[in-house]
Amino acid sequence: MKIMISQPSVTLLIFYLLFITLSNANVQDFCVADYKAPESPAGYSCKELGKVTVDDFVFSGLGVAANISNPFKVGITPAFSSQVPGLNGLGISLARADLAPGGVVPLHSHRGASEVLLVAEGTVTAGFVSSNNNIYITTLNKGDFIVLPQGLLHFSVNSGHSKALVFASFSSENPGVQILDNSLFGNNFPTELISATTFLDPAEIKKLKGLFGGSG
Amino acid sequence: MKIMISQPSVTLLIFYLLFITLSNANVQDFCVADYKAPESPAGYSCKELGKVTVDDFVFSGLGVAANISNPFKVGITPAFSSQVPGLNGLGISLARADLAPGGVVPLHSHRGASEVLLVAEGTVTAGFVSSNNNIYITTLNKGDFIVLPQGLLHFSVNSGHSKALVFASFSSENPGVQILDNSLFGNNFPTELISATTFLDPAEIKKLKGLFGGSG
Amino acid sequence: MKIMISQPSVTLLIFYLLFITLSNANVQDFCVADYKAPESPAGYSCKELGKVTVDDFVFSGLGVAANISNPFKVGITPAFSSQVPGLNGLGISLARADLAPGGVVPLHSHRGASEVLLVAEGTVTAGFVSSNNNIYITTLNKGDFIVLPQGLLHFSVNSGHSKALVFASFSSENPGVQILDNSLFGNNFPTELISATTFLDPAEIKKLKGLFGGSG
Amino acid sequence: MKIMISQPSVTLLIFYLLFITLSNANVQDFCVADYKAPESPAGYSCKELGKVTVDDFVFSGLGVAANISNPFKVGITPAFSSQVPGLNGLGISLARADLAPGGVVPLHSHRGASEVLLVAEGTVTAGFVSSNNNIYITTLNKGDFIVLPQGLLHFSVNSGHSKALVFASFSSENPGVQILDNSLFGNNFPTELISATTFLDPAEIKKLKGLFGGSG
Amino acid sequence: MKIMISQPSVTLLIFYLLFITLSNANVQDFCVADYKAPESPAGYSCKELGKVTVDDFVFSGLGVAANISNPFKVGITPAFSSQVPGLNGLGISLARADLAPGGVVPLHSHRGASEVLLVAEGTVTAGFVSSNNNIYITTLNKGDFIVLPQGLLHFSVNSGHSKALVFASFSSENPGVQILDNSLFGNNFPTELISATTFLDPAEIKKLKGLFGGSG
Amino acid sequence: MKIMISQPSVTLLIFYLLFITLSNANVQDFCVADYKAPESPAGYSCKELGKVTVDDFVFSGLGVAANISNPFKVGITPAFSSQVPGLNGLGISLARADLAPGGVVPLHSHRGASEVLLVAEGTVTAGFVSSNNNIYITTLNKGDFIVLPQGLLHFSVNSGHSKALVFASFSSENPGVQILDNSLFGNNFPTELISATTFLDPAEIKKLKGLFGGSG
Repeated sequence: MKIMISQPSVTLLIFYLLFITLSNANVQDFCVADYKAPESPAGYSCKELGKVTVDDFVFSGLGVAANISNPFKVGITPAFSSQVPGLNGLGISLARADLAPGGVVPLHSHRGASEVLLVAEGTVTAGFVSSNNNIYITTLNKGDFIVLPQGLLHFSVNSGHSKALVFASFSSENPGVQILDNSLFGNNFPTELISATTFLDPAEIKKLKGLFGGSG
Repeated sequence: MKIMISQPSVTLLIFYLLFITLSNANVQDFCVADYKAPESPAGYSCKELGKVTVDDFVFSGLGVAANISNPFKVGITPAFSSQVPGLNGLGISLARADLAPGGVVPLHSHRGASEVLLVAEGTVTAGFVSSNNNIYITTLNKGDFIVLPQGLLHFSVNSGHSKALVFASFSSENPGVQILDNSLFGNNFPTELISATTFLDPAEIKKLKGLFGGSG
Repeated sequence: MKIMISQPSVTLLIFYLLFITLSNANVQDFCVADYKAPESPAGYSCKELGKVTVDDFVFSGLGVAANISNPFKVGITPAFSSQVPGLNGLGISLARADLAPGGVVPLHSHRGASEVLLVAEGTVTAGFVSSNNNIYITTLNKGDFIVLPQGLLHFSVNSGHSKALVFASFSSENPGVQILDNSLFGNNFPTELISATTFLDPAEIKKLKGLFGGSG
Repeated sequence: MKIMISQPSVTLLIFYLLFITLSNANVQDFCVADYKAPESPAGYSCKELGKVTVDDFVFSGLGVAANISNPFKVGITPAFSSQVPGLNGLGISLARADLAPGGVVPLHSHRGASEVLLVAEGTVTAGFVSSNNNIYITTLNKGDFIVLPQGLLHFSVNSGHSKALVFASFSSENPGVQILDNSLFGNNFPTELISATTFLDPAEIKKLKGLFGGSG
Repeated sequence: MKIMISQPSVTLLIFYLLFITLSNANVQDFCVADYKAPESPAGYSCKELGKVTVDDFVFSGLGVAANISNPFKVGITPAFSSQVPGLNGLGISLARADLAPGGVVPLHSHRGASEVLLVAEGTVTAGFVSSNNNIYITTLNKGDFIVLPQGLLHFSVNSGHSKALVFASFSSENPGVQILDNSLFGNNFPTELISATTFLDPAEIKKLKGLFGGSG
Repeated sequence: MKIMISQPSVTLLIFYLLFITLSNANVQDFCVADYKAPESPAGYSCKELGKVTVDDFVFSGLGVAANISNPFKVGITPAFSSQVPGLNGLGISLARADLAPGGVVPLHSHRGASEVLLVAEGTVTAGFVSSNNNIYITTLNKGDFIVLPQGLLHFSVNSGHSKALVFASFSSENPGVQILDNSLFGNNFPTELISATTFLDPAEIKKLKGLFGGSG
């Protein structure tokens, strides 16, 4: 087979390029979030293409150690679509957690995403519980990661002697974060209902509600 | 491994909780329908989170027997996302059908969902036809259900001597309902085209158009 | 436009039908579960089409009140793809819960599905907690339902004076069920880790592990 | 910013390429169907990568006019994943229909796919019915196409004076084809049930069962 | 089992039909694009149902041979959701390419869709490269097609002596088109970066930037 | 509302737990890869649940700096489902790249995933090209990341004076990696076809084929 190759001139190529461009108006490779427009189950509305810049795809927030002077001795910095407009609709997001020695990322789940937890510094004990009630726990060192399947309760603890830094990647740009303590003790979920549906002692519940700012 | 546990004070925990909350603005666990805003292929736009109440997730319409004084002797009550704003984007919906003895849910399909049909009262004969033209029919009693795969023609008939009540669950909040009789005989679909594409006799078509309010 | 219609003979139509059938071999409207063959992330392998019967799509297990003579005074009967082969791959499933007065479906979540909880008998108080820690609770009577979005903690309690019966529909044939008590207290999840990641008192944890058969 | 560029040697590059290759074993760009292995809801099992050739991705069957000497005066040639192994899992498929003047693609639906029907030769009248019972009909000439949304009843008719040729594209490699006449009259779907659920006259049903090879 | 069938009267049937219709408001079988309203990751907003006509589902643009008097001797006519409002959200689209002898559809990829390339006239050599660097090439005649899996580089060339016409079908209504030459040489992608990341000679890059209207 | 709470005994609770467990056999929270069993479009077959351990979810390979003594001065370590069995079906994966000063991750794309590229050490210039031929480039420091939408060509370059380390997260457990140089110059893709479809000079192509081990 012999293929004929000819050298294009600038003018003709520009003509050709224009032809392609006009035909392909509104090619939607991404949908940078317009936080002011309506949201749908698929995410935020799209920012006008002509106003999109590389800055919509860049985020620097994960470069700063979060404040860990709190009871859990942990600081969590999310980088979801609500923080990074370029993530809208793309099915991925990140977060950073800084843990002091003994610091914990408390027991929680992500309703909308699976997670990979990567240790960047320190030593972290992490694990999850399955629907079959099997508990999978391991201790991770720098460079190790653990996979945490979607929607299941999991946690991590700094089990070393120095600060720990972990990066979490999620299979959704909007994974959701449901922290057990906040869910039960940080609102006005009635104590008697919590006790009936968990068998936790009402006194224990009241005490933790006092700690987490809840009532009822 | 020894984990250090310290008792938090109220002030510090509130600080910590605020930290989490501010970082996680607009966590979209659901997207309650705002019926006044634009729709997209993914569903309705989301109602503002601060205006969402438990009532958006609650529906009482399936508690009332529908009027069955009509030729098919059936009343159908849907609970799709267009009736229940909390269903928007969640991939599930319900419906109720009340059938007098001999009453029928006429032959129809759901373009967008598979269905499970559960008998709550009475005796119901139900079935579907596959793309291979196999017909799967069974008679169901109280507590039985049948699975009706997406997009295939199916029906149910009250084959008992008393009223029947069924609940249908769908794998979409917007399953669609295409009833064969309405599709062919309830509009202005030209008789000659129906006859050519179904081999139904034009006289039969005209008669049924007369019954179902169609023309052409 | 004039459409020519001719009357087909049996022989020619059978010929035509054969043509269509041979051309459309292996039309996969469904994939009835073959429990003996490999599973994949999409579900069970498919049973051979020629061996599928209507019984693969029918389930009677939800017609029987489950045994409620246990501490939670509840019996739960699932109808997931692992119980009903015809549900495999179809994105929908059901379950039944029978609750004595004061009986509870304990706090739990479904990692893989949204749920609609419909009251068939009695009075039920039900609710869920969102990632923002808002608690949505309501009391439902016969015919009412509540929508419970995917992956979030929820519960229901029989708040009436007689037995209650609810039916749950899920937006997945394999929704998963993670019960909080079983997850924390029904296995060998170390007490010190639970305490560190939930702030629950170790004595309370040990007591509940004693109740739920856990250790560690 | 100054970027250092160095010229690679063959040896080093081969080393580099091997590094990439070994690290990326089993990169699954496609999953060519192995018809002998188990099927799952996601499709056929994958053929071993080393046995895949370009022929798995090529199909010539749409180049041949199908036999149209039958009552509907149409021949339909599918190119779904069950005919073209390379289509497995890719979400797309094709079909060809040859229609003599007055020939019809009878009323049918595709449970699993939306369709685009493109006229390559002749004049075709085509349309679909929505769940709202709106009928959308148009006459298409060579080069025109119509969009037929998933799961809805549709048809096409050669309304010209010469043969017509159409190509259909589907948004699934396994769209399913449910032909109304075959579904009702080509099997043993009991006449009394068809009549009860469609209001078709039993005599009409029996006549068409006679034509389409059905019974009952 | 004996099914009771009664003959409906017009009045009662109209009543029944109204009942169904009112209950099923806003049944969203499709979401015809409203180009003036916000876009989301799922596509364009939906046009008001009452304003939808069959013309929203029809497109004639693929019936016209595109201008092939340009260096590549090819004309490409897309029919994506940005051209055909009825395609919005439906997961399918088409395009047409006219190639003079020796004309080429230059090396490109579709980030969002798999493709089927069907030859309608002429002889075309086409192929794709996999992530494993295997090259799959074949020569296609009229009626042949090749499957081109999502996101992989591919091309086609008119290897015959007369004009060629191909139709492409895509598994997305918004497949995206990334043409290699335009991506590297049709913008201001800095030459030194292109050279560093491709090992292309800077002089070659500059020459092609001159041809394709790029700079830097 | 008064909720009755009773203290369970060990025996009764064990009975209750067994009831739940038996009813919920094969709850598939994850599908750890069985590399020896068939693959499907959805991924690998599932390993038997009883044989799953935490090690299936843990990976240490990203903790080791890859060998960067090669022409591109980069080492890439993937952690996809083919390396980490616990990732199978979960929609997420990671990779690590070590770059010496001036080292590059050459121009490439991922057919199946969007990516987030996070800089852990050093300074990296990265960017992507859209289907509209817009080039988005930025320079990232430690802690910065850039979003790289699915299927689009992108690259990164160490633009600092010391080694750089980046971690990539992908929205698929099997993202695919198509490197431009390997695709064009690392196989037997005929030179004349490459030239015809890219306008690259045949001499340049031959030279690069020599470098990348290709032929033809």
